[in-house]
Amino acid sequence: MDTIVLKEDSVVLIDQTLLPERLEYVVCRDVESLAEAIVSLRVRGAPALGVAGAFGLALAAMNSKGAVRREVLSDLEAAYTRLKSTRPTAVNLFTCMKVVMDVARVSDDPRSAAVDAAKRVFEEDVSMNKRLEQVGAELFFDGDVVLTHCNAGSLATSGYGTALGVIKEAARQGKDVSVFAGETRPLLQGARLTSFEMVDAKIPVTVITDGMAGFAMKKRGVSKVIVGADRIALNGDTANKIGTYGLAILAKAHEIPFYVAAPTSTIDPDTPSGDDINIEFRSRGEIEFFNGRRIVPRGAEVLNPAFDVTPAEFITGIITERGVFYPPFDFGL
Amino acid sequence: MDTIVLKEDSVVLIDQTLLPERLEYVVCRDVESLAEAIVSLRVRGAPALGVAGAFGLALAAMNSKGAVRREVLSDLEAAYTRLKSTRPTAVNLFTCMKVVMDVARVSDDPRSAAVDAAKRVFEEDVSMNKRLEQVGAELFFDGDVVLTHCNAGSLATSGYGTALGVIKEAARQGKDVSVFAGETRPLLQGARLTSFEMVDAKIPVTVITDGMAGFAMKKRGVSKVIVGADRIALNGDTANKIGTYGLAILAKAHEIPFYVAAPTSTIDPDTPSGDDINIEFRSRGEIEFFNGRRIVPRGAEVLNPAFDVTPAEFITGIITERGVFYPPFDFGL
Repeated sequence: MDTIVLKEDSVVLIDQTLLPERLEYVVCRDVESLAEAIVSLRVRGAPALGVAGAFGLALAAMNSKGAVRREVLSDLEAAYTRLKSTRPTAVNLFTCMKVVMDVARVSDDPRSAAVDAAKRVFEEDVSMNKRLEQVGAELFFDGDVVLTHCNAGSLATSGYGTALGVIKEAARQGKDVSVFAGETRPLLQGARLTSFEMVDAKIPVTVITDGMAGFAMKKRGVSKVIVGADRIALNGDTANKIGTYGLAILAKAHEIPFYVAAPTSTIDPDTPSGDDINIEFRSRGEIEFFNGRRIVPRGAEVLNPAFDVTPAEFITGIITERGVFYPPFDFGL
Repeated sequence: MDTIVLKEDSVVLIDQTLLPERLEYVVCRDVESLAEAIVSLRVRGAPALGVAGAFGLALAAMNSKGAVRREVLSDLEAAYTRLKSTRPTAVNLFTCMKVVMDVARVSDDPRSAAVDAAKRVFEEDVSMNKRLEQVGAELFFDGDVVLTHCNAGSLATSGYGTALGVIKEAARQGKDVSVFAGETRPLLQGARLTSFEMVDAKIPVTVITDGMAGFAMKKRGVSKVIVGADRIALNGDTANKIGTYGLAILAKAHEIPFYVAAPTSTIDPDTPSGDDINIEFRSRGEIEFFNGRRIVPRGAEVLNPAFDVTPAEFITGIITERGVFYPPFDFGL
C-alpha cells in the first residue's frame, strides 16, 4: 500500500477520503490537481504533506516547458506559491518544499535538481520513520492499551507512520498491544484510516467516538496515549488534530503517559511557542453535513478549527528519529 | 412544539431521529410501537422518557380489553414489564412508571386510575421544569458563554427542558447569553436538537464537534458548562450522555463552573454512588455506519456506551426544582 508515489509524469496517491469503503488512487498530472488533493484531504498527515509538496515541485519541474534555466525556475516558483497556499498548519509541507527550492534555485539544472531533491525528501521520510519506530517501540510493553487520535500512520507518511508506526513496531517485536482509535470528527480519520491500518496489521483495534475517551481511560484500562503532530514549537507545545488537547488533559487527570511521535522536521525553529502557530479553520460544511445529510439546522453557527495546541506541560515525551525528548524540552535547534 | 402528548387512543410524539431536516410526529397506538420509539430514540431524554413510560401505561389501560379489574391490571403489568426493558440507565423511566403502577394496583378502577396518574406525571414534569428554570437562571449573567452537551431541552422533557430550559429562561430575563453545542456523537443530539431549540429561541448557538470542547474553553471564553442528567446517585455522582465526564474534567482544568440541571426525580435513592449505575451499551451500528455509509472497516471492534458517570467532585452545583445543591451533596432523601 503506497500512500504517495512519484511517477514519470504524475504523482499517484491513495484517495483517503474514500477509505475504508474503497481503496482508489488519484493520479495528479499537474500541480493544480495535486493542490486540490491536498486541500480536500485526499492526502493528509504532516509527513505525507511534506512529501506531497516536494513531489508537487518535482511535477512542476517535469511539466515545465521552459527552454532555459530561468523559465524552469519561474514555473517552480509558481508551483511553490500555489502549494504553500493549500494548508497553513503542518510545518512539514513548508520545510520539505523549501529543501527542494533551495537546491533548485542554486542548480544549473533546476529541473533534474528538483526531481532528485524531491526523491531524497521521500527517502529521508521513509528512513526517518523507520528510526522513529525503533525509538518509540522501546517505550511500549506487553499488555499496553494504547489510545490514539486521528491518523498518524502509514497513510499520513510516505508509508511507515509515526504514532502508528511505533505501535506496529512494538507489535512486530512480539509485544501484546491493543488500540483504541478515537474516531476524530469531523472527518473521521481515526474511524476510517487508523482502524483500517490496525486491522491490516492484525492489531486489535476498537473505535470509539471522541467523547468516549474519558470512559475508555477510566473503565477500559488505557495505559498510554500516543498521537502525531503537525507542528511542534521550540518549547514543546504541539499542534495536532483538533481534540488532542482535550485528550492530553484527560490523560493527565488519569495519570496516563501522553506521547507525541513526530520526526524532528515537525519541530519548527521559527515557532517559539504554541501561541505562534497558525491554526487552520476549515469549512462549515464539514460539520454541517454528513454524507449529504444536513445535521445542523440553518441559523446555527459552526466552528471548525482543524487543530489545537497541546501545551508542553501535558506531554510526557516527544518521540523522534533522534530519540525521545522529555520536558523541559530542548531540541538543540 | 409538543414533544409528547397523550391522546384519546394514542401517544403522539416528535420523531427526534428526523430532526433537524424534518419535523414529523409518530402516532403510537399500542405499547409495542411506543417501546420501539423509545429503543430507537425517537423520544429520548430522561424526563421525556419518564413521561413516555407513564403514557405507555395509560395507553395499555385504554387499550385493555379486560372486563374486570384483574384483567386490566394484568395488561398493565405486561406493559410495565415491556417498557422497563427498553432502556436501563435513565431512572425517570422507572420512577414515573412506578408511580402509575402503584396507583393502579390499589385502585378499584385501574383503567382510569392509570390514565389519571399518567396525566399527573406529565403535569408534574411541566411544573417542575418551570421551577427548575427559575432556580437555574439565577446563576447566569450577561455575557455568559455556555457550553452544553447532548440535548437537555424541551425535546428531552414534556416541553420545557432542564439545562436548556435554564439557558432559555436566562435569555427571557434579558440576559445576553450564547451557547456552544457539542454535537454529541454518535447520534448528534447536540448538533441536531440543541441547536434546533436554540435557533428557535433566538439564542446564538455554535455547533462544535465533541473534540473541540477544550479549544472552545481555552480560546473562545466558555464561562459555564451545563448538562442534564439521566441518573444522579445519592452522593452526587451523575450519569449523563457519553462525553459528559470528559467535559467535566476539561471544565475543572480551565476553572469553569460545571452545572447539572435535573429534577429531583432523577436522584435515585436506590443508587448510593456512580459505581451502582447500570450503563447502557448500544449497538455497534450507531458508530460503524453513518447515514448508510460504512465509516469503520470490517474487522475493527466498536465500543458504544450511551452514558458515562461524572464523579461528584467535578460538579459545581446540581440545579433542581427544589433549589441548587452544592457539594458535599445531601439531597435529604
